Amino acid sequence: MGCAVLPLTLSFVTMDQVNLKRLAKELGLAISTVSRALRDSHEISQETKDRVQALADKLGFQPNPHASSLRKNKSKTIAVIVPEIENNFFSGAINGIELIAKQKGYHVLIYLTHEDFQLEKGILQLLQNGRVDGLMISVSNTTTTADHLIASSQAGLPIVFFDRVFEDLDVPMITTDDIEVSFKATEYLIKKGCKKIAFLSMAENLSISKRRHSGYQKAIEKYLPGGWHKTVPCTPNDEQNRQVINNLMEEPDAPDGIFAAVEKFAINTYQVCNERKICIPQQLKVISFSNYSATALFNPPLSSIIQPAYEIGREAAAILFKIIENKKLLTSENKVILPSQIIYRGSTN
Amino acid sequence: MGCAVLPLTLSFVTMDQVNLKRLAKELGLAISTVSRALRDSHEISQETKDRVQALADKLGFQPNPHASSLRKNKSKTIAVIVPEIENNFFSGAINGIELIAKQKGYHVLIYLTHEDFQLEKGILQLLQNGRVDGLMISVSNTTTTADHLIASSQAGLPIVFFDRVFEDLDVPMITTDDIEVSFKATEYLIKKGCKKIAFLSMAENLSISKRRHSGYQKAIEKYLPGGWHKTVPCTPNDEQNRQVINNLMEEPDAPDGIFAAVEKFAINTYQVCNERKICIPQQLKVISFSNYSATALFNPPLSSIIQPAYEIGREAAAILFKIIENKKLLTSENKVILPSQIIYRGSTN
Repeated sequence: MGCAVLPLTLSFVTMDQVNLKRLAKELGLAISTVSRALRDSHEISQETKDRVQALADKLGFQPNPHASSLRKNKSKTIAVIVPEIENNFFSGAINGIELIAKQKGYHVLIYLTHEDFQLEKGILQLLQNGRVDGLMISVSNTTTTADHLIASSQAGLPIVFFDRVFEDLDVPMITTDDIEVSFKATEYLIKKGCKKIAFLSMAENLSISKRRHSGYQKAIEKYLPGGWHKTVPCTPNDEQNRQVINNLMEEPDAPDGIFAAVEKFAINTYQVCNERKICIPQQLKVISFSNYSATALFNPPLSSIIQPAYEIGREAAAILFKIIENKKLLTSENKVILPSQIIYRGSTN
Repeated sequence: MGCAVLPLTLSFVTMDQVNLKRLAKELGLAISTVSRALRDSHEISQETKDRVQALADKLGFQPNPHASSLRKNKSKTIAVIVPEIENNFFSGAINGIELIAKQKGYHVLIYLTHEDFQLEKGILQLLQNGRVDGLMISVSNTTTTADHLIASSQAGLPIVFFDRVFEDLDVPMITTDDIEVSFKATEYLIKKGCKKIAFLSMAENLSISKRRHSGYQKAIEKYLPGGWHKTVPCTPNDEQNRQVINNLMEEPDAPDGIFAAVEKFAINTYQVCNERKICIPQQLKVISFSNYSATALFNPPLSSIIQPAYEIGREAAAILFKIIENKKLLTSENKVILPSQIIYRGSTN
């Protein structure tokens, strides 16, 4: 065997950030546009490419030839960065990603951020060294800036967002119809007689959190204008959530319906109801986002919004490979929105 | 930033396998002993080290100096290889691993084998190039040989097994008291009046499968000698399992107790019982290995054997870092057995 040092470590950074910035400024273009033009991306017009190249030549800015030759040695590896894996949504998405990666002969590295922004940043930096050919990410709930992602993307690392995204970034993203489906779930509770529906919400800065809340709000405004409504912030901590829900149910003006933004909060609600002998659905109806099929075995079975986790993963990976292989993305592939499905069960009857 | 090629790719193979083999043969030692002696491992006596070194010198076998100098550049990364992550046991173990890794300033790569031996082998080969400083593995249920693991270990890659292990290998391993706890679970069903207990079993070649079956068998032999017993092989496929369980419950001599080796099979049993209107626990008592806390919300709540997933991960990582840091393992750290816990709930009442 001997010592075989494989060229897995390579840099996608072919030019100083400083130089990229200067080119961008002088040409009145975005840094990402300059970076893409120099990489001969299909997204940039030939005219722009020529302008960028001409100024780069004039200023003597050269892509690093060493990096560029190494670049051809693909790592044959992609990364997926998710907050956690206890959640059946993320494990489902990862399975979809791995299906496509397997077809392409790629390995998949899974990184967990545990909802920690600093850790997420560290992983992004680690991946800059060429360990992977591209990455898919669902951001942590403490991530409030996309700077680390923009930097990686500008340095030439293909990125695809899924589920938890930054909506205004110029990066392909796969999400679900969170607003519409949250509207429908809330509407259903109202039609089943609920007059006081509380929304159990996760970290407010998350895109999906905002979208789910917005669907809830729209349904309240439409069917119960000016009526009772309450948004209850929950956390990843079960104990804390049970305390919060317990307090909520103790109030004289307690809710008669719960819409949980994630499965964990519905489970916490069931636990509190078991303890307090509150009958679901007679005294409290519950509906929740959930990708765990065994919620059908709960007492009573939990009405669930099921996201197409596997399809999201498959789609995200398919788009990532198109970018890695330098194929042109369809306009529709830049923002893919897949529909979720609601299964109504005993908890809302 | 420029182009910084980091020395992440390095080889742990410091000497031809052929040479190692020849040294081992001439000295009457195992290849792994020779390899460890040359690496100055604390596990090998000074006398043996001297003997090995003397013959290596005599035959002119030299560790590759390039590899050895690179070796010092640690990747600061460890890998964990598991069959799947939908399973709450593995996600719990990974969380324990990440806690220790974080304390050490290490990154954790997660690889999934999807119960595919060829994929597991491919991952092991990929990891030979120095991408990680060590790995923890729970083998796939189609893995019937440890050759790929032995090869990696002999090439100098520290390995720790957890949960699904090869018991006769000379590699540190963390398991749980599967036999004892399975005996206790079966014994409980018998004491609750069950006379015909079926064991829903996973792939038979797995160490944990054998151990769980053995605990079941011992309880039957002790309390119901010569009585009804049945081992029912199940698979990762829900549909197939439901068919198998359905057939089982259709027989005139159907069981009155189910002991499920993994949570999935208990869920499949609940689904069949719901369809066939079989009352749990009146007509059929059910107990199962399960690390999903929400089984307490099932109708009826599922009696569960809970493995200390988080502690297993923590322990496995702590031992792996001792090896990476070349610290001496205690004898007790070579085979660590942690106790599981049984929570009796409505499904066995």
